[in-house]
Amino acid sequence: MIRRAFFVLALLVLAGVSQPRAHAADLIVEKKTFALPSYTTVGGAPIKNMRIGWEAAGTLNADKSNAILITHFFSGTSHAFGKYAASDATAGYWDGLIGPSKLIDTDKYYVISSDTLVNLNVKAPNVVTTGPASIDPDTGKPYGMRFPVVSIRDFVRVQKALIDSLGIKKLKAVMGASMGGLQAYEWAASYPEAVERIIPIIASPGGDAFLIGWLDAWGQPIRIDPKWNGGDYYDKEPPLDGLKASLTLITLQAQQWEWAAKAFGTAPAEAGKDPGKAFGNRFKIEVALDAAATARAKTSDANSLLYLVKANQLADADRSKIKVPVLAIYTPTDLIFYPPSIETAAKAMAATGTPVETAQLTGPNGHLNGVLAVGQAADKIKAFLER
Amino acid sequence: MIRRAFFVLALLVLAGVSQPRAHAADLIVEKKTFALPSYTTVGGAPIKNMRIGWEAAGTLNADKSNAILITHFFSGTSHAFGKYAASDATAGYWDGLIGPSKLIDTDKYYVISSDTLVNLNVKAPNVVTTGPASIDPDTGKPYGMRFPVVSIRDFVRVQKALIDSLGIKKLKAVMGASMGGLQAYEWAASYPEAVERIIPIIASPGGDAFLIGWLDAWGQPIRIDPKWNGGDYYDKEPPLDGLKASLTLITLQAQQWEWAAKAFGTAPAEAGKDPGKAFGNRFKIEVALDAAATARAKTSDANSLLYLVKANQLADADRSKIKVPVLAIYTPTDLIFYPPSIETAAKAMAATGTPVETAQLTGPNGHLNGVLAVGQAADKIKAFLER
Repeated sequence: MIRRAFFVLALLVLAGVSQPRAHAADLIVEKKTFALPSYTTVGGAPIKNMRIGWEAAGTLNADKSNAILITHFFSGTSHAFGKYAASDATAGYWDGLIGPSKLIDTDKYYVISSDTLVNLNVKAPNVVTTGPASIDPDTGKPYGMRFPVVSIRDFVRVQKALIDSLGIKKLKAVMGASMGGLQAYEWAASYPEAVERIIPIIASPGGDAFLIGWLDAWGQPIRIDPKWNGGDYYDKEPPLDGLKASLTLITLQAQQWEWAAKAFGTAPAEAGKDPGKAFGNRFKIEVALDAAATARAKTSDANSLLYLVKANQLADADRSKIKVPVLAIYTPTDLIFYPPSIETAAKAMAATGTPVETAQLTGPNGHLNGVLAVGQAADKIKAFLER
Repeated sequence: MIRRAFFVLALLVLAGVSQPRAHAADLIVEKKTFALPSYTTVGGAPIKNMRIGWEAAGTLNADKSNAILITHFFSGTSHAFGKYAASDATAGYWDGLIGPSKLIDTDKYYVISSDTLVNLNVKAPNVVTTGPASIDPDTGKPYGMRFPVVSIRDFVRVQKALIDSLGIKKLKAVMGASMGGLQAYEWAASYPEAVERIIPIIASPGGDAFLIGWLDAWGQPIRIDPKWNGGDYYDKEPPLDGLKASLTLITLQAQQWEWAAKAFGTAPAEAGKDPGKAFGNRFKIEVALDAAATARAKTSDANSLLYLVKANQLADADRSKIKVPVLAIYTPTDLIFYPPSIETAAKAMAATGTPVETAQLTGPNGHLNGVLAVGQAADKIKAFLER
């Protein structure tokens, strides 16, 4: 709990926002496990004993027509709303949006959120995932890089199996930010009969060459760290330096110039230690990024980051199959998903008759505006869900 | 020569541009060395036997009033124009702009360009620089990370000493892209009496917190590579993997989404090897970035990259001292220098009476539009120089 709280806190502090206040009566959620004895990936590889975690709030109505699925971002988990215990230091990342009488009203909707396969936060106490850090039942040892390649489509297939297990025939909506938005698009393309509408945030439908290149670059520091050892480190010291450098790249690209100027400026990390005088004298932003990476690395797994890189590189929802209404929310200062390509995809889908709306978010946090500032689009989201 | 040509070629191929055609009569330039027995850095550290390379074209007029200084970018060298020999595969990076009867007409101007201190391309045959790879005269061994910290201001001080040695009292202009633009701003702030006007391209005057963070991230893969060994690798294998990962980050951030989509798309590197099927099956852009990094790494030095990181982090020309006319050229799709901060700095300087003009470049290459597409601002540059 403490580690998880520290991670969320580090992210929020880095994002330059204050932490959401605790509500008088916190929404308490319970982490559950969904398991399949066997799952076959899109690439055709079998995974035995597949398990993912999930949590929900609200009540599923009699005809099971009020369910909304929240899909998480690259470094996220199922913990989008509520707390696991009243004593938790922080709530889920969208607790400001999701809960009783909130924008996504759990008095009205049954809101589900699940951990993906190959989830990054393997060491977070409440995360349940199957990935390279899992024990391969055939060998009794962690898979490491022998785990099969999985894609966003696999994440969505597993979510569909979870929904099926709950007897839900059709979701009211799928909503998610960044990698969560990739999943929302993939839901619309793969299961048009099982989702009424999607709200992809700070994401395109996928298939972006520049992002494919960047994702590869995000993973490179891990592969350079000798402790990575080709992915076999689970009985040794993990490649922490590489993992931290990877997480720093992700933190930076998810942010933006304005955030850095506002939060840190060009001040030295320590008064009197001029960065111009010695190599070891650093700037405030360098030390803050290191501290955030150290905090994030505590719950993260290096191989899982590499599998997420691959899954995101493979994202490419078939636009021609997206026919359900789309509310695409984005931010013009996004450094991860190219804003014009989000607009272009929206226009192309609209041109083939798909009902598409867009909304723009502003703020100093670049890509992360799509996690931190979604409230700006509250009216559009509310109307879109009630339509 | 072959290595250098390969590097430039890789950069141009990656940039998605065809190579400049050879001119009927190539401009031939000669690499010279400027040396000082001792140079004291801005930080107060002495460097003995300081040497940098430089080259020039055109003829210095009688009153030495027709000199223009070209300052180079992060991974650049003094080789901005001409060839060292007619048989060279490629010419200097701005050979299309600089030469007889060209935009910067060497029939009219005496155009000088010098290698910076801590130049990245230590292993390129024509580069002359003093930095961590140089032999410390006191120990007879390479400095490594014991070389003193240097800044953009040091680069400019050394250039001033070079200009002084040529008897030039006042430069007609200083023009440079990216790190070259930082040097142009520093020239205006440090030596207002010795420069008539500046043309900083794709650069702000410095002092950008986000860029300070990114620069640190660029250097991290080198420090993670065990072959880096705290900077002492000159008698061993260099940290090539770390250096390549660093260079890939720089290549990506100097480019932009449109370039990647146009040059590579989402095609697999090898037909029939679906990246969704196996971890080793890669995308075309990943393999191209690796090949470019391998080519660039051949002439580059890892410690020098870290010193350049520091020098750029320290860039912060005093805007209040910039009084000479400024033509600031930038590109709205720049991912390294925040375009609004270039505009803001221009407006702030103009508000204090400094004559400031701006020009925008377009193109698919993001930051690199400022190297590859400067011709778009030819009319403004010509008028600005002739004013």
